[in-house]
Amino acid sequence: MSHLILRWTVILWSILIINGCNQQQAATEAKAATPPAKTFTWKMVTTWPPNFPIFQEGVMQLAKDIEAMSGGRLKIQVYAGGELVPALQTFDAVSQGTVQMGHGAAYYWAGKVPAAQFMTAVPFGMTAKGMNAWFYGGGGLELWRELYQPFNVVPFPAGNSGVQMAGWFNKKIQTVDDLKGLKMRIPGLGGKVLAKAGGTPVLLAGGEIYTALERGTIDATEWVGPYHDERLGLYRAAKYYYYPGWHEPGTVLELIVNAQAWATLPYDLQRIIEIAARSLNQWMYSQFEALNIKALHELKEKYKVDVLPLPKEVLNELKRLTKEALAEEAEKSADFKRVYETFEKFRQEHDAWTAIADDAYSDALK
Amino acid sequence: MSHLILRWTVILWSILIINGCNQQQAATEAKAATPPAKTFTWKMVTTWPPNFPIFQEGVMQLAKDIEAMSGGRLKIQVYAGGELVPALQTFDAVSQGTVQMGHGAAYYWAGKVPAAQFMTAVPFGMTAKGMNAWFYGGGGLELWRELYQPFNVVPFPAGNSGVQMAGWFNKKIQTVDDLKGLKMRIPGLGGKVLAKAGGTPVLLAGGEIYTALERGTIDATEWVGPYHDERLGLYRAAKYYYYPGWHEPGTVLELIVNAQAWATLPYDLQRIIEIAARSLNQWMYSQFEALNIKALHELKEKYKVDVLPLPKEVLNELKRLTKEALAEEAEKSADFKRVYETFEKFRQEHDAWTAIADDAYSDALK
Repeated sequence: MSHLILRWTVILWSILIINGCNQQQAATEAKAATPPAKTFTWKMVTTWPPNFPIFQEGVMQLAKDIEAMSGGRLKIQVYAGGELVPALQTFDAVSQGTVQMGHGAAYYWAGKVPAAQFMTAVPFGMTAKGMNAWFYGGGGLELWRELYQPFNVVPFPAGNSGVQMAGWFNKKIQTVDDLKGLKMRIPGLGGKVLAKAGGTPVLLAGGEIYTALERGTIDATEWVGPYHDERLGLYRAAKYYYYPGWHEPGTVLELIVNAQAWATLPYDLQRIIEIAARSLNQWMYSQFEALNIKALHELKEKYKVDVLPLPKEVLNELKRLTKEALAEEAEKSADFKRVYETFEKFRQEHDAWTAIADDAYSDALK
Repeated sequence: MSHLILRWTVILWSILIINGCNQQQAATEAKAATPPAKTFTWKMVTTWPPNFPIFQEGVMQLAKDIEAMSGGRLKIQVYAGGELVPALQTFDAVSQGTVQMGHGAAYYWAGKVPAAQFMTAVPFGMTAKGMNAWFYGGGGLELWRELYQPFNVVPFPAGNSGVQMAGWFNKKIQTVDDLKGLKMRIPGLGGKVLAKAGGTPVLLAGGEIYTALERGTIDATEWVGPYHDERLGLYRAAKYYYYPGWHEPGTVLELIVNAQAWATLPYDLQRIIEIAARSLNQWMYSQFEALNIKALHELKEKYKVDVLPLPKEVLNELKRLTKEALAEEAEKSADFKRVYETFEKFRQEHDAWTAIADDAYSDALK
């Protein structure tokens, strides 16, 4: 064998080996491509205090579930309100892409998207049942996506408080006149309606409510429902606990995703987020209900709280003033007007059905 | 260069190339190992006809979602009732491991697990809101798992019909006496209660109802709610449409998994099933609501159906007879008795909360 032949043998042999090796590697990589191994690490901010039961608790669980379901392909680092950005900058942070995800409630962004209040709660609006029927089967979610689209944000319903309580009062409310001069912690449209009734709505963060009520800086406050109200100790600061929560009959919480971040996700991770959000929506509502049931029982039996209905005359006046307030908002924003009309149409048919279904059934139980 | 040296060069060179190639491949395979690539192909049977709206429709979507969310690692082949096993053998097929998964309603297995009826619907029981609060926050689901455990089956709530309608009648129901001699298609405990009231419960499959009612073989029938009842054309076969559905106030549908099959799944696929089921639970209920809202409107406006309330006196008598019927079942089964007592305790506190929340709010809207 000449040197030349041997040299060529070496070169050809090497080419064959390298080529075979590359083919083998390509086959291994092709196998690895199902499922795709690309991983994402996202940041999520919320409007809730750390460890806030049900609210932040549900969000922490959501992040864990998404990581588990995706087999580690989508990791979400959760920051409570103020940990990364101030609570009320959650929407902006998601909109600008500072973070990829957020959890809060649409009425917090009323200054930016007035019509989005219909996606959370408006006085004398729909309960959880109606809101969810509207979102998942009545076109409500499509409308919501449209409202957030200019802000680069994709929304998902992800939690519901159920019917809230009207709140804690240091005196009895017997007529509309009892609302006059009343200093009450009540935000948003509910506050506007109270102002129309002659009261003074006061804005206070959760942590400030108890002291303000206990010291008489305010005469009344609403918060959430029996469970959260009991935890805040409000039964020690005011005697009368009124129902129903006319101003927030089924407050919807939202999961929001930055639109560009959403678009970079493969289909399977998008489905995971969408389905995890709907599951969270159901879980949170059921948690509120289960814990409110227990807490109401305890407030009545253990703490002897006076649980009282707002008189029909008072509710009727609040309803009349709500219509005025909503009409005023509709004059300021074409979007608000359009969503209000769509919402109202669905609400009326929903209420006609509820009258012969849930309401008639409740009556049958009595 | 001698032949010997050249020959050794060739051998060493080859070893180096092959070795490098193996290392490269090992690295590629390690990368591929996250997420785990093991795939599962499951069979699922249901109690529903093919293309049955909301019911089978939701199940088909669930299977697609699970496959997408798992990146193809869990594929589910769905068979409608009768396609692989008869509809009412769904529970047995899952129990015996013939298939890994099923979808149906717990009261279909009343003969096997009498207490499981509380996990679907009992007359004068809880609506969707209460059932879900019980399952997800009040210990109901843990109790359900315990009931199915001896059968090798793991249950998940996965759908709710909402409050059903009392049904279609060919004569007006004005007093309890009008139920005497009434031949009505009404299955399960509702049928037992009707029998106690002097009526004759008749068992008929969905496909046979219309003809039987139209020909007068039966005098009345219940089915589901406005949407499904309209699709079956029942408004052409009977004049009076009564509410509320005292016998099925919030019928729960179930996803069931064979316990051994469940145990073989990695944690992430278990989470996918659990969360997909909870999301389906929310979706189905909202679909029922949204479509019932529309259908009720249509039945009244387009088909001029007489939608009437069962008189309070009739409802009270049915309630009294329901208590008798449940007490009789409790005497036959210790499990039934135990679940009944737990259910009743939760129901009473739930109703106390609902009275001041949803019911008081509904009254405020009037």
